[in-house]
Amino acid sequence: MLSSSGGHSHTPSTVGELGEFGLIRELTARLTTTSAVRIGPGDDAAVVSAPDRRVVASTDILVEGRHFRRDWSTAYDVGRKAAAQNMADIAAMGAVPTALLLGLVVPAELPVNWPSELMDGIRDEARVAAAAVVGGDVVRGETITVAITALGDMRNQDPVTRAGARPGDVVAVTGWLGWSAAGHTVLSRGFRSPRAFVEAHRRPEPPYHAGPAAAALGATAMTDVSDGLIADLGHIAECSKVRIDIRSAELDVPAQMYDIGQAVGVDPLHWVLAGGEDHAIVATFPADQKLPARWRTIGEVLAPSALPHVTVDGAAWDKAGGWNHFKDA
Amino acid sequence: MLSSSGGHSHTPSTVGELGEFGLIRELTARLTTTSAVRIGPGDDAAVVSAPDRRVVASTDILVEGRHFRRDWSTAYDVGRKAAAQNMADIAAMGAVPTALLLGLVVPAELPVNWPSELMDGIRDEARVAAAAVVGGDVVRGETITVAITALGDMRNQDPVTRAGARPGDVVAVTGWLGWSAAGHTVLSRGFRSPRAFVEAHRRPEPPYHAGPAAAALGATAMTDVSDGLIADLGHIAECSKVRIDIRSAELDVPAQMYDIGQAVGVDPLHWVLAGGEDHAIVATFPADQKLPARWRTIGEVLAPSALPHVTVDGAAWDKAGGWNHFKDA
Repeated sequence: MLSSSGGHSHTPSTVGELGEFGLIRELTARLTTTSAVRIGPGDDAAVVSAPDRRVVASTDILVEGRHFRRDWSTAYDVGRKAAAQNMADIAAMGAVPTALLLGLVVPAELPVNWPSELMDGIRDEARVAAAAVVGGDVVRGETITVAITALGDMRNQDPVTRAGARPGDVVAVTGWLGWSAAGHTVLSRGFRSPRAFVEAHRRPEPPYHAGPAAAALGATAMTDVSDGLIADLGHIAECSKVRIDIRSAELDVPAQMYDIGQAVGVDPLHWVLAGGEDHAIVATFPADQKLPARWRTIGEVLAPSALPHVTVDGAAWDKAGGWNHFKDA
Repeated sequence: MLSSSGGHSHTPSTVGELGEFGLIRELTARLTTTSAVRIGPGDDAAVVSAPDRRVVASTDILVEGRHFRRDWSTAYDVGRKAAAQNMADIAAMGAVPTALLLGLVVPAELPVNWPSELMDGIRDEARVAAAAVVGGDVVRGETITVAITALGDMRNQDPVTRAGARPGDVVAVTGWLGWSAAGHTVLSRGFRSPRAFVEAHRRPEPPYHAGPAAAALGATAMTDVSDGLIADLGHIAECSKVRIDIRSAELDVPAQMYDIGQAVGVDPLHWVLAGGEDHAIVATFPADQKLPARWRTIGEVLAPSALPHVTVDGAAWDKAGGWNHFKDA
């Protein structure tokens, strides 16, 4: 780490000492590229291949203290997570991520290794999805803020929106549910283990490949689980004007999650149904569609009724609701 | 304004009262669309036409107190400016802006009309360039932060980078130089006039059409003037491994700018040569290329020498340099 290289007294240890252009050089030097990148960082704008003639784009913005904590997550993990949540949105349309752009606010007194390791994390997560960081902007401010835009290519498939679910469809999920929320609870109680849940909170692993695969299998609606399963299925149900019923017995609650739930006094079903940030992918499919092994059927699409948009075992779930960034804190 | 509609006691007046989803609804309801928008706001990601099979993309991030002040600029003007500076980057590659994405951080106590009017400004500036806002993210934080990503289409032209200037080329500029910096000086001394300069600072008007037009005319290198003419031409000179000489007599310094300079004790040439944020477009062209009326030839490209990358009338300019966000403040 730069800040600990005490022998090199002229190596800048804070972003303020390094300056804007120095920091941009430091960050771009860490990047790798792909064949889709026609023009990468360093010019007025990047140029990226869009062979499908349509580009898929999504932006997320993360603020220190609200979306991440430096004492809970390394800069590298924050970078992995920020890139992952954005590319999960691309995958959830049925597209393949191609490129990321980064807008970064950093305090002048921040050690240079923090943004450097953040960039390493963003770069490495991009590589998991065969994408590349192609540009960005770095400015000074009081609060670390990470704005990421992901671009993707549809590869000649039609985008899968939230609006196409039809009564009779099945609801299926791939990826992990509740792991990040369980990890968040553990961390917020001052613990650092069980490691599997803490790691899931620090660094989600969205099943990027599953998005385009679901589109190819004829998914009628799809979204990534960022706000919580009930909340995100609620978006599909609302947009599709249907009701969705989840069968709780079909949800995969690992034994260790029950143990942790008992230890901290939380029903683990709450993490699975209402915990966000795992970036699992949930989709609806025609009932006769055979699904690959890693998809798990967890419910069905019904005609709208007087019940809430999303029910669990046929009834309203009384702890329903996802994360509202303004009201819940 | 919502905050002054005292008769409607249930109308939320702050973003905290409205909540995340309410604010997103409020903002997206203000948007308009274009034929390039296949899927707009409200799904996991947007889908935008990219007929050229290449997408141009650029991100900028603005922080209150550093890039804008609420007592100097309305929310509407901040939106216009944020969109303008990003789309100017798209134009400076020779591309046509198609879409914008917004990442927004707002304090809970902020009146709702501020982000609403910001969005109106972004939308209206997008419309100037025939682009549309297609998505975004809104989160809560202490400091208003506006991250904008602009996308564009090359329309079958080759991108014009900063690296193609050749000795013998002429340097030409279109748009305004120094107006925003003069306005900034006026505002920082507590004045609100002359209006033309103050307005130029609050709401730059980049010549979007000139970017693709310059590409069609065979521009060899191009950039927008965001950091200051000398600094931005320095990027071209450095990337192209040439020297650029500006002839100061060719620069257009309006009489009123001399008057203001005299009143505040600033050489107006400093605003023209080192002031940024006007988002004029500067490009290099083959010497025999006839340029349209709105382009002004201001210098020439020379072989590299022991002199600085950019000279004024053949000599180093002693007040050279653009804005360094970390070191100058």
